[in-house]
Amino acid sequence: MSKALKLPAIDPAAVVATTGTNYPDHLKPRATGRTKQRLGDALGLKNFGVNLTTLKPRAASALRHWHAKQDEFVYVVSGELVLVTDAGEQLLTAGMAAGFAAGKADGHHMLNRSNHDAVYLEVGDRSAGDAVTYPDEDLAAAWVGDHWQFTHKDGTPY
Amino acid sequence: MSKALKLPAIDPAAVVATTGTNYPDHLKPRATGRTKQRLGDALGLKNFGVNLTTLKPRAASALRHWHAKQDEFVYVVSGELVLVTDAGEQLLTAGMAAGFAAGKADGHHMLNRSNHDAVYLEVGDRSAGDAVTYPDEDLAAAWVGDHWQFTHKDGTPY
Repeated sequence: MSKALKLPAIDPAAVVATTGTNYPDHLKPRATGRTKQRLGDALGLKNFGVNLTTLKPRAASALRHWHAKQDEFVYVVSGELVLVTDAGEQLLTAGMAAGFAAGKADGHHMLNRSNHDAVYLEVGDRSAGDAVTYPDEDLAAAWVGDHWQFTHKDGTPY
Repeated sequence: MSKALKLPAIDPAAVVATTGTNYPDHLKPRATGRTKQRLGDALGLKNFGVNLTTLKPRAASALRHWHAKQDEFVYVVSGELVLVTDAGEQLLTAGMAAGFAAGKADGHHMLNRSNHDAVYLEVGDRSAGDAVTYPDEDLAAAWVGDHWQFTHKDGTPY
């Protein structure tokens, strides 16, 4: 039945799954094992993005980071994830949530240290002028027009 | 364990559940049986709201409506819901999603016609100048400053 859903409804199974990141090449290996299904885009939403993301065992959600202008929200659908922030680690099981308010200088990411896939919903708005800080890397990102521009922390390009 | 989560993580079970609506009094009975837990607010997010909403059997998500400026997204966590739009009805089971792009004139709501609670995540941004159209009622809503102002369709107040 569910495969037959028509917009404005959607079966996530029908949404293409993408892998890979826009990180500089030497950092791409840090985000393998991550698959995103862009549900919000598939539904025609513009003001925020919603991804259904799957992390394989050993995969990370992202490099640890925080956003200057954009809020982020995460809801664990299945499996379990370790949330890493400045305060340390917390285990998030299915049904747990997390939120990262714009401008809060607390780098975060999630790690799948289990032996099973972990699936979560992630929501982020598209506030203009966003910039991303990566506390653990010589990396910075700025949203320029329609894509992320990655540089060294001093602004020099990769 | 999960009860011990600390911000920026949260166990939704620890978030207060609210009922009731701001609809004019004669329409309030149309939104009974609905409970919302405002996860985004509890996490300090400002750019969009995220609610974990529970509909008891016979309850409705809202009066059928559409937003001029704000996008909406729904993900069914458990149970099943009937999505009603201009095109008719579709059954959404756990794991299914729906999205309502700002400005698309297609009134929607969800009905729990099952004998069990249905739980879903709903996300909506907070774009300024939003207005809500209710195709089936003599009702309109405008976001004024910090609250919804409900009027008759001709603009006269309730």
